[in-house]
Amino acid sequence: MPARTGKAFLEGLRKNPPNIYIDGEKIDDPTSHPFTKNSARSIAHLYDLQHQAELKNKLTYDSPSTGARVGMSFLETTTVADLEKRAQMHKIWADTSLGFLGRAPDYMNVNLMAAARAADYFAQCDKRFGNHMRNYYEYVREHDLVLTHALTNPQVNRSLRADELADPYIALGLVEETAKGIIVRGARMMATLPIADELLIFPSTVLKEQEELKRYALAFALPTHTPGLSFQCREPLDIGRSHEDHPLGSRFEEYDAMVFFDDVLVPWERVFLMNDVKLANRAYAETGAVYHMAHQVITVKIAKTEAFLGVANAIVEMIGSGQFQHVQQKVAELIISLETMKALKLAAEQGACLDKYGTMTPAKEPINVARNLFPQLYPRMVEILQLLGASGMIMIPTEKDRHGPKAQEIAKYLQAAHASSDERIKLFRLAWDMTLSSFGARQNLYEKFFFGDPVRTQAALFESYNASPYIEKVKAFLAIGNREFSEL
Amino acid sequence: MPARTGKAFLEGLRKNPPNIYIDGEKIDDPTSHPFTKNSARSIAHLYDLQHQAELKNKLTYDSPSTGARVGMSFLETTTVADLEKRAQMHKIWADTSLGFLGRAPDYMNVNLMAAARAADYFAQCDKRFGNHMRNYYEYVREHDLVLTHALTNPQVNRSLRADELADPYIALGLVEETAKGIIVRGARMMATLPIADELLIFPSTVLKEQEELKRYALAFALPTHTPGLSFQCREPLDIGRSHEDHPLGSRFEEYDAMVFFDDVLVPWERVFLMNDVKLANRAYAETGAVYHMAHQVITVKIAKTEAFLGVANAIVEMIGSGQFQHVQQKVAELIISLETMKALKLAAEQGACLDKYGTMTPAKEPINVARNLFPQLYPRMVEILQLLGASGMIMIPTEKDRHGPKAQEIAKYLQAAHASSDERIKLFRLAWDMTLSSFGARQNLYEKFFFGDPVRTQAALFESYNASPYIEKVKAFLAIGNREFSEL
Amino acid sequence: MPARTGKAFLEGLRKNPPNIYIDGEKIDDPTSHPFTKNSARSIAHLYDLQHQAELKNKLTYDSPSTGARVGMSFLETTTVADLEKRAQMHKIWADTSLGFLGRAPDYMNVNLMAAARAADYFAQCDKRFGNHMRNYYEYVREHDLVLTHALTNPQVNRSLRADELADPYIALGLVEETAKGIIVRGARMMATLPIADELLIFPSTVLKEQEELKRYALAFALPTHTPGLSFQCREPLDIGRSHEDHPLGSRFEEYDAMVFFDDVLVPWERVFLMNDVKLANRAYAETGAVYHMAHQVITVKIAKTEAFLGVANAIVEMIGSGQFQHVQQKVAELIISLETMKALKLAAEQGACLDKYGTMTPAKEPINVARNLFPQLYPRMVEILQLLGASGMIMIPTEKDRHGPKAQEIAKYLQAAHASSDERIKLFRLAWDMTLSSFGARQNLYEKFFFGDPVRTQAALFESYNASPYIEKVKAFLAIGNREFSEL
Amino acid sequence: MPARTGKAFLEGLRKNPPNIYIDGEKIDDPTSHPFTKNSARSIAHLYDLQHQAELKNKLTYDSPSTGARVGMSFLETTTVADLEKRAQMHKIWADTSLGFLGRAPDYMNVNLMAAARAADYFAQCDKRFGNHMRNYYEYVREHDLVLTHALTNPQVNRSLRADELADPYIALGLVEETAKGIIVRGARMMATLPIADELLIFPSTVLKEQEELKRYALAFALPTHTPGLSFQCREPLDIGRSHEDHPLGSRFEEYDAMVFFDDVLVPWERVFLMNDVKLANRAYAETGAVYHMAHQVITVKIAKTEAFLGVANAIVEMIGSGQFQHVQQKVAELIISLETMKALKLAAEQGACLDKYGTMTPAKEPINVARNLFPQLYPRMVEILQLLGASGMIMIPTEKDRHGPKAQEIAKYLQAAHASSDERIKLFRLAWDMTLSSFGARQNLYEKFFFGDPVRTQAALFESYNASPYIEKVKAFLAIGNREFSEL
Repeated sequence: MPARTGKAFLEGLRKNPPNIYIDGEKIDDPTSHPFTKNSARSIAHLYDLQHQAELKNKLTYDSPSTGARVGMSFLETTTVADLEKRAQMHKIWADTSLGFLGRAPDYMNVNLMAAARAADYFAQCDKRFGNHMRNYYEYVREHDLVLTHALTNPQVNRSLRADELADPYIALGLVEETAKGIIVRGARMMATLPIADELLIFPSTVLKEQEELKRYALAFALPTHTPGLSFQCREPLDIGRSHEDHPLGSRFEEYDAMVFFDDVLVPWERVFLMNDVKLANRAYAETGAVYHMAHQVITVKIAKTEAFLGVANAIVEMIGSGQFQHVQQKVAELIISLETMKALKLAAEQGACLDKYGTMTPAKEPINVARNLFPQLYPRMVEILQLLGASGMIMIPTEKDRHGPKAQEIAKYLQAAHASSDERIKLFRLAWDMTLSSFGARQNLYEKFFFGDPVRTQAALFESYNASPYIEKVKAFLAIGNREFSEL
Repeated sequence: MPARTGKAFLEGLRKNPPNIYIDGEKIDDPTSHPFTKNSARSIAHLYDLQHQAELKNKLTYDSPSTGARVGMSFLETTTVADLEKRAQMHKIWADTSLGFLGRAPDYMNVNLMAAARAADYFAQCDKRFGNHMRNYYEYVREHDLVLTHALTNPQVNRSLRADELADPYIALGLVEETAKGIIVRGARMMATLPIADELLIFPSTVLKEQEELKRYALAFALPTHTPGLSFQCREPLDIGRSHEDHPLGSRFEEYDAMVFFDDVLVPWERVFLMNDVKLANRAYAETGAVYHMAHQVITVKIAKTEAFLGVANAIVEMIGSGQFQHVQQKVAELIISLETMKALKLAAEQGACLDKYGTMTPAKEPINVARNLFPQLYPRMVEILQLLGASGMIMIPTEKDRHGPKAQEIAKYLQAAHASSDERIKLFRLAWDMTLSSFGARQNLYEKFFFGDPVRTQAALFESYNASPYIEKVKAFLAIGNREFSEL
Repeated sequence: MPARTGKAFLEGLRKNPPNIYIDGEKIDDPTSHPFTKNSARSIAHLYDLQHQAELKNKLTYDSPSTGARVGMSFLETTTVADLEKRAQMHKIWADTSLGFLGRAPDYMNVNLMAAARAADYFAQCDKRFGNHMRNYYEYVREHDLVLTHALTNPQVNRSLRADELADPYIALGLVEETAKGIIVRGARMMATLPIADELLIFPSTVLKEQEELKRYALAFALPTHTPGLSFQCREPLDIGRSHEDHPLGSRFEEYDAMVFFDDVLVPWERVFLMNDVKLANRAYAETGAVYHMAHQVITVKIAKTEAFLGVANAIVEMIGSGQFQHVQQKVAELIISLETMKALKLAAEQGACLDKYGTMTPAKEPINVARNLFPQLYPRMVEILQLLGASGMIMIPTEKDRHGPKAQEIAKYLQAAHASSDERIKLFRLAWDMTLSSFGARQNLYEKFFFGDPVRTQAALFESYNASPYIEKVKAFLAIGNREFSEL
Repeated sequence: MPARTGKAFLEGLRKNPPNIYIDGEKIDDPTSHPFTKNSARSIAHLYDLQHQAELKNKLTYDSPSTGARVGMSFLETTTVADLEKRAQMHKIWADTSLGFLGRAPDYMNVNLMAAARAADYFAQCDKRFGNHMRNYYEYVREHDLVLTHALTNPQVNRSLRADELADPYIALGLVEETAKGIIVRGARMMATLPIADELLIFPSTVLKEQEELKRYALAFALPTHTPGLSFQCREPLDIGRSHEDHPLGSRFEEYDAMVFFDDVLVPWERVFLMNDVKLANRAYAETGAVYHMAHQVITVKIAKTEAFLGVANAIVEMIGSGQFQHVQQKVAELIISLETMKALKLAAEQGACLDKYGTMTPAKEPINVARNLFPQLYPRMVEILQLLGASGMIMIPTEKDRHGPKAQEIAKYLQAAHASSDERIKLFRLAWDMTLSSFGARQNLYEKFFFGDPVRTQAALFESYNASPYIEKVKAFLAIGNREFSEL
């Protein structure tokens, strides 16, 4: 069953619902429960697009195993053109949500692709693990499954190591090995998009190379309905409002969840790494997964930035504020943000290189810079939209108001210079949901931390960057000393 | 009926409910309707405090007309000590909401007090109007009523004057004078706290001194249940969550509303100004009302800043992050913000002067500076709290979750270094509601525009400020020229 | 005499010295006068490089008229590869001054090239002018001359037009036409690098299309020693210190000058445009000159940014401060700035198009964004270097101190963790001259205004940018309305 | 000889010249050497002011020992009025240099006063030391001497303690005790204003409480001409330009110097503390000296901020740019900075308390906040002035130019809308020297680090601030839980 339809995706969820808990209850059918049905449909829509005649060639390619069409995000990239082709696919999906569905399935697919091509990396841990990784990638690709993941340990105490806590299984750890597989226990933060078919655990938290910590060095995958595995979500931000009232929140509530493992069995064929702290620590970087994922992310952020620029211009046009200097300056800032992100993406693609596994991998410097820059740009984009919309962002009647007892007054008093009150309300609703609803505000926080704690990502940029050519340049200049530049 | 109780306030609302419309329906009883009952109770609580033994002397004083205790915010200030006494009262009320009830009734009371003392100002328009203003103030003081107000015209077209629109009564204007009073028509933005007894219309929008515009020069007051008068609110941000889940939004949803006037009769005794553009334009500044209101506001903002500093420190303490330099730097920023606001308030009080009506009025410069500064400080305060809470601000289970099927896991995995999961969840809930809920996000926008469009308030500061002593100082220095400072 | 040597350049200056005035005196020989000799030598050095065996092919190409080698910056660009080749040349020259010689001759050369290829543009004004432009370009290219230019009118009164002043010839204007040419009078600001062979006047200030203003619509060129033409420089920032003490200021003082025209005759063959306000206003943009010049500039700014990053890293390494988070964060900011500028340059080159004159022209959007962004980045780069060097930037002994009575103490107490006091002093001298000397401080202001008043360049970016695709995207999203994304 | 005249001060310098080295030479007579004579005269001017009839009462008071007039900065403060009186004196002195003489003598005088009143603190170390401190204060007061000081160790290696370096006497340390006094060796940074009568060494660098470090715990004083003691200055920023050309740099070059101690004998009566790390670490804070010094500093910074505001307004007025929004916004920022600093000073004075030595000491919180805030405000003030002056800040002819061959053209083309070219040039010269000369740029760096490394002062603010009332307030709010605010 390659390149699924939306219907097939929803049937899968109904048949094997993930063990999701929201607001004190278990979600038995995520495709119909009010908390989750809307986002399930939005994901389903992405799958439907794969079958639209005009998009098919952009969103799918011929499976190397079966020849059937499979999702483009699974493409094994060996040329710059592959990266560009894949990016086009990321962009099409991202545009459907104006970039507000942060974790569309293509994000994890490129992780999996990179890991599969680096199967030898996992084979260093155990010969079988390389095959597991490769097989799992093909299984997901051919069944077009949705994956979520969970990267960090619960933050119980930042001054102690995981093994020093009273209970060493607060962090997810290996309990024992059995004939069938391994038993794991503990919790992980934060699975965004738990309405998924599969959960991939990949090693992200850097561990000290100590014997006591090796139980936390783990990579494996599980179906989300596996017994003993459960997802505890935060409060729903889709609060049952109409698509008009909450155009984003009513569609793209992807949720964030803690993942609990209550002595869960992971079958051997789903184990990719264990007990090896050194291999765990370097997995994301060495397999190149992180650069492919960031490439997808940067493409989504470009879609999102375009949406901010579009809404900003639409507001300026509608209320006729384009002649004000401070308005021009704010829109100019958005233009600078967009063009900068696009230029960094171009640089990442044009500077891409084949890694040691033969995978064409986006250039690290522009990718790392974009990762550091966007979390700084985004809060300002939000602020700019708020400042452009001003008090008009607050006084927005609801859809029911528009058809209620004061409909006439609303139509009269809320018209804009160049638009009816209906058009004005709809546009400002979107601007509000991008920046001021609980949904929009979560996005703001999410962007700040998406790539990790900004303090640490900056430190990582400092440490990973090769500045020696520039130091040498300065030293060469100093070496001129008091010699003249030109003798007469 | 001086210094009311909460109960009396609520009975008043039930008896004479304001004409409020929310989400397509009319609110018949704001004290029991789920959209409004919580905020009605929070206002009622303020009135109850007036009768608590230990607060009575701080919150009330002896009415000059009856000798009975009346609300301290009505105090006619003639000494610096009066201002300090009144500020103490503002602070006590503000602290009950951590500063998140932006429009507690004392805000409008000080407006009214200043206007009443400047009765002669209104008498210039019509001898009767001075008395109306004074009488209305005493009426409100002695009945301890809650007022709302609405300052600006609908923003239909920023490039045309109000009278140039197809319908000149989109902006609120005078239609005709009758024996009983005046008939007014049109709309005004934005009445915050429409759950009020009275609506005060005061002239704020600056008008050109043209004959065609004099109909828009208006000051009057009306009960909120007056026929033909109605309030259209925005979408409710109190969405029915428990006080634990939404500690602020479930209590302090003050609403914002458009006010519609459908040929409403204002009786003569409630008319304070009409037809005089010049007097209308200068009313806020000349009566000193704006400085008294800003004095209340700055006190509330100090309460709010204290809350940010308190929550920030509580989080840092709970998760043990105080040793990180960037955490220290962020908390230091909050300290700087708080102490700066407190110093400006002190300077406003210590520099206060008697105005021409004999009213002790806070000093303009520090008041104007605080008005310009706080809208810049607040968004950063919000950002700092988000950055300190980090991903912990997202993954917060609900009250139902805490008692639901995964209660045990939540207790285990969400504990903090120095707190139980219950304590942690409650604290982070508050931080979330301050900064990331729809309620908190509205506060962010509200603070940015509370004192008016920042571009204009900066221009006003530039224009009103007397910089000539500093120019003279520089000229004196330049006049030294090439003379030596000291001859040998 | 194609592709000159430094010696030839200096001989040219000695033979025909520009009419330069500095600090109350006329500079008779700029190659030997202490105020100018150092910068003359630095320019000469650039010409010498053209003849170095390993650089010759990068810095020169075969003249299409003579086959002799001429300067690469004159290259008529018709392919992306041409732009890349030329940029390489810009970079080599820029690196010799670490980007601190803002107006190396290649800047004006690309202006001239673009104008010459757009000869038809000038021919619209007068058939002869197109030929004059083309011939002048070839003349400069084949003689490898140094050009300066001057763009703006004196800022006597910002609220009056040039023709409304008491004397309409404060701004440079046409006085009369004669058989030999035109007579011009007035002044222009600011000729940077007046130590040049030629002055090009190009029309930059936007004029209203009024009869009274046509006299100000002018484009022409003159030798800098033309009688009646003079250059009044600002105070010299090369104050006679050694190259060690002031490594930049003692070498790259390019000066800024007002240009006075005292009824100067411009021969007809040097007139390119006159009397046509419309053509004057659009000349920079229509000929593409501005994009080519900005392409050179951005390349120089990259060289400069590399120098900041190099010095920053060298300091961090020398004093061992790399483990501090705030240090890492600051260096990371420099990395982000550099990679962003590099990515925008790449985008400008990869997105280049042939214009209507068949010239391959860098893409406007990334060029315009880089022009807006760099003035924002630069002051922060300066601040970062100051913060990294801290008090070490102040306490730097001079070269004479290093060899004076306290040489021993200096050697002992000023050593660094990983460097001798001599090395430390030299590095910090450079950092000081980049950021804290009068020379460095002028650079800071110069960068802020290089591309014009930031307020206007932002407005221009807003107005020139095509945001309609993004508005359409948002409208398409809104058009979905309440339809479901996926039906079940 | 109480309250000296300028002449007396200069005679003192001539008689006992400090051992100062500048640019490779020893300054034998600082009152006549071109490097130092201008600043010596500027200091002398301060002393002359003490004898002006209209200032005498503001600048001096009756000595408690002799009844003669002594300098007001020596006043032992026991009331808030004392602090206000002293601040007035600081302001008068600061205004003579527009705040650009950072280290006028009153700065050290208040240090000494606080230390003398806390004589018991030093007596804990050795009974005699308390008396030494008190006596030394009276000696300086009665002779009206100028002091400098030097606080930090040379920054040879930030990762090693002073005693771990190959030579433990790079940092200033105690070598041995003799009958006459103590022998000290090493170096200290940075003595600003070495053109002083006396050097005070006070313990500032925080030391670990280890036996090996006790030799660095030192407080003592010495005449600046003591044999073995020498001052190595940085490059002179007074480069011999006229007062018109460099109105600040030609007058207020206070220098910064390293201080070398070549086995210098400190007589016992000048020793205040030794060998006690604990007492050394806490001396500044416990004696209150730091709060008195910061009080003086904040007053000087207010004078400086006033100068920025004055120059900014004068420029805006002169070139007629006050109608531009972005100009208004920038001036408004300066107003906010000034009023904030003034409010914090007021809060420090109004909140002052008697310390345990009976000294009225400015309130710590506002003082600490002002210390943290000003270094953030100052660089922006500099930037604002640059942006307001724009290119007019660059093209400023010299005094010689104004009287040179192009005088006529300068007069014509450099006039301003509301000023002659002479007035314009003089004003812009001042603005340039405040922000763009080497002198002005050093001030920018100096302000950033005056109060110490910003990262550390922020950490200190975080650590010293008592936030518990605000934490308690938040906890009380959370304790309300799900109770209603008001029951019906």
